[in-house]
Amino acid sequence: MRNFKEDAALNTLNHSCAHLMAQAVKHLYPNAKFWVGPVVEEGFYYDIDLGDAVIRDEDLAKIEKEMKKCAKADKRIVRQEITRAEALEQFADDPYKVDLIERMPEDTNISMYTQGDFTDLCRGPHVSSTKECRNFKLLKHSGAYWKGDKNNKVLQRIYGVCLPTAEDLEDHLKDLEDAKQRDHRKLGKDLSVFMFSETVGSGLPMWLPNGFTIRRILSDYIMDKELAQGYVHVMTPSVVSTKLYKISGHLAHYKDDMFPIMERDGDEYCLRPMNCPEHMIMYKSTLHSYRDLPVRIAEIANDFRFEAGGALTGIERSRAFTQNDSHIFCTPEQIAQEIKNVTKLILDVYGDFGFENYSFRLSLRDKENTEKYFGNDALWEKSEAELREVLKEMGVPYYEAEGEAAFYGPKIDVQVRSALGHDVTLSTIQLDYQLPERFELEYVDHTGAKVRPVVIHRAILGSLDRFVAFLLEETKGALPLWLSPRQVVVIPVSPEAHSEYAEKVVSELKKHGVRAELDNRNEKLGYRIREAQTHKIPVEIVVGDGEIADQAVTVRRYGKKEAAKSSLNDFINDILDEIASRR
Amino acid sequence: MRNFKEDAALNTLNHSCAHLMAQAVKHLYPNAKFWVGPVVEEGFYYDIDLGDAVIRDEDLAKIEKEMKKCAKADKRIVRQEITRAEALEQFADDPYKVDLIERMPEDTNISMYTQGDFTDLCRGPHVSSTKECRNFKLLKHSGAYWKGDKNNKVLQRIYGVCLPTAEDLEDHLKDLEDAKQRDHRKLGKDLSVFMFSETVGSGLPMWLPNGFTIRRILSDYIMDKELAQGYVHVMTPSVVSTKLYKISGHLAHYKDDMFPIMERDGDEYCLRPMNCPEHMIMYKSTLHSYRDLPVRIAEIANDFRFEAGGALTGIERSRAFTQNDSHIFCTPEQIAQEIKNVTKLILDVYGDFGFENYSFRLSLRDKENTEKYFGNDALWEKSEAELREVLKEMGVPYYEAEGEAAFYGPKIDVQVRSALGHDVTLSTIQLDYQLPERFELEYVDHTGAKVRPVVIHRAILGSLDRFVAFLLEETKGALPLWLSPRQVVVIPVSPEAHSEYAEKVVSELKKHGVRAELDNRNEKLGYRIREAQTHKIPVEIVVGDGEIADQAVTVRRYGKKEAAKSSLNDFINDILDEIASRR
Repeated sequence: MRNFKEDAALNTLNHSCAHLMAQAVKHLYPNAKFWVGPVVEEGFYYDIDLGDAVIRDEDLAKIEKEMKKCAKADKRIVRQEITRAEALEQFADDPYKVDLIERMPEDTNISMYTQGDFTDLCRGPHVSSTKECRNFKLLKHSGAYWKGDKNNKVLQRIYGVCLPTAEDLEDHLKDLEDAKQRDHRKLGKDLSVFMFSETVGSGLPMWLPNGFTIRRILSDYIMDKELAQGYVHVMTPSVVSTKLYKISGHLAHYKDDMFPIMERDGDEYCLRPMNCPEHMIMYKSTLHSYRDLPVRIAEIANDFRFEAGGALTGIERSRAFTQNDSHIFCTPEQIAQEIKNVTKLILDVYGDFGFENYSFRLSLRDKENTEKYFGNDALWEKSEAELREVLKEMGVPYYEAEGEAAFYGPKIDVQVRSALGHDVTLSTIQLDYQLPERFELEYVDHTGAKVRPVVIHRAILGSLDRFVAFLLEETKGALPLWLSPRQVVVIPVSPEAHSEYAEKVVSELKKHGVRAELDNRNEKLGYRIREAQTHKIPVEIVVGDGEIADQAVTVRRYGKKEAAKSSLNDFINDILDEIASRR
Repeated sequence: MRNFKEDAALNTLNHSCAHLMAQAVKHLYPNAKFWVGPVVEEGFYYDIDLGDAVIRDEDLAKIEKEMKKCAKADKRIVRQEITRAEALEQFADDPYKVDLIERMPEDTNISMYTQGDFTDLCRGPHVSSTKECRNFKLLKHSGAYWKGDKNNKVLQRIYGVCLPTAEDLEDHLKDLEDAKQRDHRKLGKDLSVFMFSETVGSGLPMWLPNGFTIRRILSDYIMDKELAQGYVHVMTPSVVSTKLYKISGHLAHYKDDMFPIMERDGDEYCLRPMNCPEHMIMYKSTLHSYRDLPVRIAEIANDFRFEAGGALTGIERSRAFTQNDSHIFCTPEQIAQEIKNVTKLILDVYGDFGFENYSFRLSLRDKENTEKYFGNDALWEKSEAELREVLKEMGVPYYEAEGEAAFYGPKIDVQVRSALGHDVTLSTIQLDYQLPERFELEYVDHTGAKVRPVVIHRAILGSLDRFVAFLLEETKGALPLWLSPRQVVVIPVSPEAHSEYAEKVVSELKKHGVRAELDNRNEKLGYRIREAQTHKIPVEIVVGDGEIADQAVTVRRYGKKEAAKSSLNDFINDILDEIASRR
């Protein structure tokens, strides 16, 4: 997806188009007064005072029509500079402009841009003629408080986008439509995956039965993988004494991102934003010998962060989420092997999900500012070299990002390219020399001395919530069979005549653990088939006289036109195979 | 287990024994001053000021010896009454007695009891001679602030118990030892099931790998049962807006039992003490027709209650726990069938766990005070009759408890008799007419009218935490095979010679999903066998030359003396069978 703010040419074009829109609005609403019209990532908008008028959906077409006219007029866009005093005089009857001018430094000239009958204050730059702005689209409108302050007047905000050519515009609008169709918030609602409720609270997701099924499959999947790799799984409480975060140091730095502290009977508690400190305490609760290391403590952990209201984005960024977290406690000699094991696990998991477009980002220290980091030079150089060596040895695509390491150690983030072209960080591997120090962790080495272990933080799926959002957006909600909460729907041609056999098919499938359901509602066959498709159910089975006669099923896969008939037994074997192999 | 406070004869005897102990202490510590010596459920104690002296373990034997002497002396215990003024005069140099006397009403006589050289203020009654108190045992000692106030002096508290006969005492001490062995807090520690840490916070359990494995098995077990019975499983957040509890009415009545409210950006949040309100919101988020009912929303839900510090009891009563909860939304006509289904599910589950000693308690309204309850008479009479009818029809042992219903409806609690003779409420079924009203829940009935559904709250395992505590205490930590976090340990006779085959056995078992581990540490065979027993691992396999030659295993079950040899294949089939059948 294009970023209209970052791309200089697009930025200029869109800013000019904002003026074009303002010109058209002024023609249609002669009393309109204009506040600001910036370029944002998604295009441009303008905040406009229309007196008592309110923009409705149908007004956008009218404004677009007038904009076309202004563009066609091919007016030159002319820059002019005047003094601050002159500007104040010229715009004396426009309180918005006066407000803007007064905030500019004294003794500076102010630039204005004029196109035909329309003049606006503006820093520029602009394209040279209104004609260049002709490939635009107004996207939406909303009310917006002046200066974002609830006590101020509500202005009319109109959003639009402008591209260099008609083809570019068409492509972009297609991309927008695709993004809308992929938006996990829309899919989550359409497919009953999760819901939000103002009564329950912003950013606090409620997982509906379909969503919980996906979560359960994902957490079982990753737990079983991890157990097989020598991890142990634990469960630690979501609310803890603040003592824990005083030791870890989070309370000093992280408080603003946390839910408020709760005080009772002289003790302070908080909802945990992460579970590392609890795993430290668990490690510390028993004696460890070098022979027992590495200890790999994992948890499907419910964590809580007080994200700003404006940052909340469905289950991608919420205030209650679940991490696929682990802390590996190892000796310094074991770091390379452990990083290798984690990398293997990541590749294994990505293979199961079919992710192919990813790269490993190795975040290193800023060598110019080594004092910003915990621990000594030798340690950093050694561990950075080790991480690099592992990535090379594993032959994964990687790049280095100097200055991006955490304060407490170097790290590897795995960036997966999404269908919308965003880089999403799913997995992470972070070395930590600091928490072992803060919690005074120890193990007995082969000489009998007590020494500090190293901690490796790692997440494979990242947050389950964000992972589900990602999967929904990648698949447009058509999850692969093994992850699909509703795997098979069985539709009898005639509910009356064929339900008995359809029920038998459902019950056979269920007996084998397949999530199958019956749709024998008294509705037309076509309607029921369409519904199965709307719900993106991967397998749709229709049974009628022919199927009953042959003890067979006619199977159509989601998104495919053709259907194929096979014996019930063969079908069951095939589907179980497909589920087990996570194809 | 006896209750020394409730049983009148035992109460008198133990109170007399407290005097006997005081007499002995006075002989050994002539400066001793006595505060109070009450009878409690577990026996008696006395709080004593010994100046700077502190009771140590070895002092208890000395005091017991002196008590024996005093008991043998067979002194009569004589009651005497004096006026308050006389009492104040007689005990003028004992500030503790003065404190007690001053708190008694003026113009009342005060009773004293004397036995030989010892006199103490006391309401009585007492046994007639010190000899009757001879079957006693001092159990433990501790420091206790005078009047429980941290700013006061620490007194020496000595606990004891007294029984009528030597045999009774012996039985009781055996029971105490049994209870100690069964205490889930001890077992939880010995078997690494869970841990607590002051840094994490009181009452906030951390589930260690063994404990998490048990929890995972239990929650998978009950979720799968419920899904098969037409429940849907969901996940709702542990932190919610207080709006939810304002609607439900809990905030007004339940606040003291909750963690403190968190306020931020003008909104209030709280840790949920229960999840009913969220399920109401979820039900309410879509339209329902009578055709879709019942809707059975279930959740393995993390809840939080601020239990008083003194009430915390391991994972039996903690501040963070997980409920096996569900809310059934149904029409009034469906109540009986739904209660029947839940009852069947309870019996099914109890069968799997081998619980045989239970009864259903039907809690009804107090008919004398019908104004205390929500809803009208006809409704209550109808639903009480229905619940009774179901219990009769199902042929389960039940009894009725008038006046024990909840404010919002009648309920059924299932009481399971524990190995220690306590009645523990595991499962519950509660009708609720009030929450549907408060949340304005609706469904469209067959006439097209919008009407209120009924809600049935129900829990089968209750809280998973409490359930694990119960299972540990019932089994003394020797969990049945299917629930055991460590199912099989394979021990090579010689780690050097037989490890390869032992590893093969472990890996075969793991391949079949059995939780097997290898113990090829360089320790004596006997030591490794004993360790497996200490950890109560259900199956212990020893392999040596003979087993390798025959591709066999020699198997010993926990608690059995004899071992049996069988082929590896037969053993795997047998153990998988046993796990699947939950024997």
